[in-house]
Amino acid sequence: MHVVAPLDSNTVDNADKPAVRDLRRVDIHPDHWYPLAWSREVKRGKAHGVRFAGDPIVLVRTESGNVFALEDRCAHRQVPLHGGVVDGEAIRCCYHGWTYDCTGKCIDVPYLGRERLPNGVRAYPCRESKGLIFVFAGDAKLAETVPLPPLGSVADKAYKTRRFGREVACHYSFMHENLMDMNHQFLHRKQMGKMRARSLGRRRGENWVEVDYTFSREAGQQPIGEALVFGQSRPDSNIERNDVMTVRTQYPYQTLQIRTSEGSLVMDLWICYVPLDREQRTNRTFGLLSIKRPKIGALLDIAWPLLVWFTERIFAEDRWIVEREQEAHDAQGADWNHEVFPVINELRDLLRQCGAPATRRVIPIEPSAESVAV
Amino acid sequence: MHVVAPLDSNTVDNADKPAVRDLRRVDIHPDHWYPLAWSREVKRGKAHGVRFAGDPIVLVRTESGNVFALEDRCAHRQVPLHGGVVDGEAIRCCYHGWTYDCTGKCIDVPYLGRERLPNGVRAYPCRESKGLIFVFAGDAKLAETVPLPPLGSVADKAYKTRRFGREVACHYSFMHENLMDMNHQFLHRKQMGKMRARSLGRRRGENWVEVDYTFSREAGQQPIGEALVFGQSRPDSNIERNDVMTVRTQYPYQTLQIRTSEGSLVMDLWICYVPLDREQRTNRTFGLLSIKRPKIGALLDIAWPLLVWFTERIFAEDRWIVEREQEAHDAQGADWNHEVFPVINELRDLLRQCGAPATRRVIPIEPSAESVAV
Amino acid sequence: MHVVAPLDSNTVDNADKPAVRDLRRVDIHPDHWYPLAWSREVKRGKAHGVRFAGDPIVLVRTESGNVFALEDRCAHRQVPLHGGVVDGEAIRCCYHGWTYDCTGKCIDVPYLGRERLPNGVRAYPCRESKGLIFVFAGDAKLAETVPLPPLGSVADKAYKTRRFGREVACHYSFMHENLMDMNHQFLHRKQMGKMRARSLGRRRGENWVEVDYTFSREAGQQPIGEALVFGQSRPDSNIERNDVMTVRTQYPYQTLQIRTSEGSLVMDLWICYVPLDREQRTNRTFGLLSIKRPKIGALLDIAWPLLVWFTERIFAEDRWIVEREQEAHDAQGADWNHEVFPVINELRDLLRQCGAPATRRVIPIEPSAESVAV
Repeated sequence: MHVVAPLDSNTVDNADKPAVRDLRRVDIHPDHWYPLAWSREVKRGKAHGVRFAGDPIVLVRTESGNVFALEDRCAHRQVPLHGGVVDGEAIRCCYHGWTYDCTGKCIDVPYLGRERLPNGVRAYPCRESKGLIFVFAGDAKLAETVPLPPLGSVADKAYKTRRFGREVACHYSFMHENLMDMNHQFLHRKQMGKMRARSLGRRRGENWVEVDYTFSREAGQQPIGEALVFGQSRPDSNIERNDVMTVRTQYPYQTLQIRTSEGSLVMDLWICYVPLDREQRTNRTFGLLSIKRPKIGALLDIAWPLLVWFTERIFAEDRWIVEREQEAHDAQGADWNHEVFPVINELRDLLRQCGAPATRRVIPIEPSAESVAV
Repeated sequence: MHVVAPLDSNTVDNADKPAVRDLRRVDIHPDHWYPLAWSREVKRGKAHGVRFAGDPIVLVRTESGNVFALEDRCAHRQVPLHGGVVDGEAIRCCYHGWTYDCTGKCIDVPYLGRERLPNGVRAYPCRESKGLIFVFAGDAKLAETVPLPPLGSVADKAYKTRRFGREVACHYSFMHENLMDMNHQFLHRKQMGKMRARSLGRRRGENWVEVDYTFSREAGQQPIGEALVFGQSRPDSNIERNDVMTVRTQYPYQTLQIRTSEGSLVMDLWICYVPLDREQRTNRTFGLLSIKRPKIGALLDIAWPLLVWFTERIFAEDRWIVEREQEAHDAQGADWNHEVFPVINELRDLLRQCGAPATRRVIPIEPSAESVAV
Repeated sequence: MHVVAPLDSNTVDNADKPAVRDLRRVDIHPDHWYPLAWSREVKRGKAHGVRFAGDPIVLVRTESGNVFALEDRCAHRQVPLHGGVVDGEAIRCCYHGWTYDCTGKCIDVPYLGRERLPNGVRAYPCRESKGLIFVFAGDAKLAETVPLPPLGSVADKAYKTRRFGREVACHYSFMHENLMDMNHQFLHRKQMGKMRARSLGRRRGENWVEVDYTFSREAGQQPIGEALVFGQSRPDSNIERNDVMTVRTQYPYQTLQIRTSEGSLVMDLWICYVPLDREQRTNRTFGLLSIKRPKIGALLDIAWPLLVWFTERIFAEDRWIVEREQEAHDAQGADWNHEVFPVINELRDLLRQCGAPATRRVIPIEPSAESVAV
């Protein structure tokens, strides 16, 4: 009685295929560069604690301004290093003063001779780019082979960029599905008026899927906030029937771009959802929203607070609904989604395929001999 | 050392009987009409989310003023329908606009043709009576055969009724036992003075048990609040030695009535305890307290705020103690009650017998093929 | 990669020894006198609820001023007796008025004849000494054979004593290790300046371990707060190089004493960590800090608020760090500590050896016949 059979034939959900994994239990694949903080959050000479999928990580900006990333636990008593003191190019634990360099090596214990120093802690590959601090969360040996993601139009002076994001209490997959299914415009009816999305078709590659949309307004006036986001380059006009929005998941990142019929890129969004807890039921969203400056560039600056307000409202509505989806999954204990939209089923398949293998990562328990038994 | 053997021989707790179920783990029987909201909580053109034993239910009052009840999850992505929009006589999900009528049938998906509409959601039998919205929580086929409960003297103009209630963090059985055992007057000694209850005997039927009491004051003056509740029809007098209080559990409801020696019904309470969570360790109480108007009816209206204050105080004390009982059960993991009062053991037996069968309801997990495996 | 092999050979952590218990899961041994409240918390004619390792205990001060301790549950409906009423030398449950004397015997049920009284509740041996109420939490038959602990210099008029303490969310063993390892002065660098501790060696007996330290200041001035604590008897001087601090765990208590080179005891701390929850992951700390009065005793009184402020700051830092240790243990699921300081390994060994046996105490479930089954 509760069950809706998927009506849409598609490549994913055939009844004769073997049972597939619950998408909401698929861990994100760690062998990518993930943004873990904004650059401004890690001040010179300070340490800052973050998390990736339950692993505590400390980001340290040394006195010379470099940033490095270590496991956020002192090897001695497992307390967080982010409570410690930056000492030149090293971090000193706040408790007994054990000190680690950027490789995680223990280089000082105040009450032990140098020849007796213990081992250190895990170090993570770490890079800083365009105001974000990225960490390679998986196998460090692969870090050199995996490029940092391109970050949209952030570096292009023809665009103005808003950086936004916050914690959202849901699995990252709900975020991808939310953005890619533009039929959810109904959720934003108070902000956007009555818009109808029309899918122009989808494309898929090995680690990406994308879909194009056009929009038509069914009723009402275009709100001014939306005009700023979508239509700033063409004052006095609505989002055009011929404008094309492309939403793309290039694992593990997502982009949303709007191009005019002449091919001009008027809006360029890059976004990433970083799991925080081990169960990956919360994420921190890092978004870069770039808007093409109009001929008179100052107009955009003047209108910026309104754009901020508008995008915050939209994001708050999205956050509310995806957190309700996670709650439903928690209560039902399984994924009861009955998706009828082909591109979303394509996306779900991609996220399963690119995610971490099904065997859950085991926390390596290697305590000292004294604590093996309970 | 902890154990108190029941001293009172009664039909329930014989040592040679087979072990019985832990009453605090007996689910309420769903095949009854339960009040899930006050009428005023469900405004015209609005949806309102409630719960019954862990099941989310949305109450919808359509634009014509009718009320219907559905499972509070959209068939599509399982988000709560109570966040949606009432559209004529239907409810539209806030996320992608899927729309359901009063039978739970899906009648519109904005981006799908009518011929391809998916199945809908579960509908619950729903009726409105005397300011309460009732839902039949169990097997819908039985709803027509089970009458709505009579609601005491609510509809009688000779009485003035106070509607009250709130959430209480305990199993519903603690509520029944609390009200039926009038020896707990000691709990209300600050409000009621030193009263002694005397049981006149009990009666039992198939799905009910009741007990009569008289009261005597051992010390102190009658508080004015109590006079209002018990003695308003006879100003300047205490609750009389010959007044009889009858407390009755007629499964799953409870009533408390006070009659004078001449047979006049001076107070009439109807009350129901609706489990909220799946474990049934919280309930929402709905109470209707009807007081017979005195000759000069305005006296009762003038005194009403005092009566409200008095009953709130009593109810707060009862809530505090039953929540402590639930806490003890949670900590002890079993029912350590050592009841010595025969009518309470009779009541406990009735609640077990009328409750849901011992096999806990299983949540039917029928996800789509894609999410069978973990 | 995470593992630091203990570098310090010691008697505890040899690889060829059998696996030992996780110290953070060793329950404190109940066969001792534990302080459960300050005397001032239990007022005449009042009852006060406390906990020991998950067991609720009510402390009752009768109208004559005596204190007794019972299991904090009425035998009838298991509600807390601390909500009840002291009646002469007995405690009356607030719900139905069942009444217990200082031995736990039920001496009255208002609605039952005296000849039919049920059994009572468990009583705990209880003694009051120097402003603390002690309870013997284990086998009551042993209480007479175990002495109350001596409480340092509390009763000596040459000293002024500060009583302090609060709840700390960690296993008691973290508290012992924190105080005994004076290399953690680094944690208090803001309060204490740059101090270096030097261990002079350790001693061990059957149920105790102790260590001596001297201190040297590496940089900065002595803060005034520290002067008050450590150097009040010698105004205008720092803690002397020849002063000796002795930290001792005499199971289950701990002391810290500072003596001058002439042998004068200038500071005398007695402290006990009482587990609150059944898992023993929180404790309530009871501390008695006695400072020797200087020649002009009023100086100490005048400076007392500063000393209070100083010790609160130190204690707050210690609390923060030990709670982080507990969090790490909770997240890692085992004891990953890699201790390099011999006396701490000695202490850990002692706490394991003196703790409760490994089989966790089982809560005796002896419900009435009616509630055996689920």
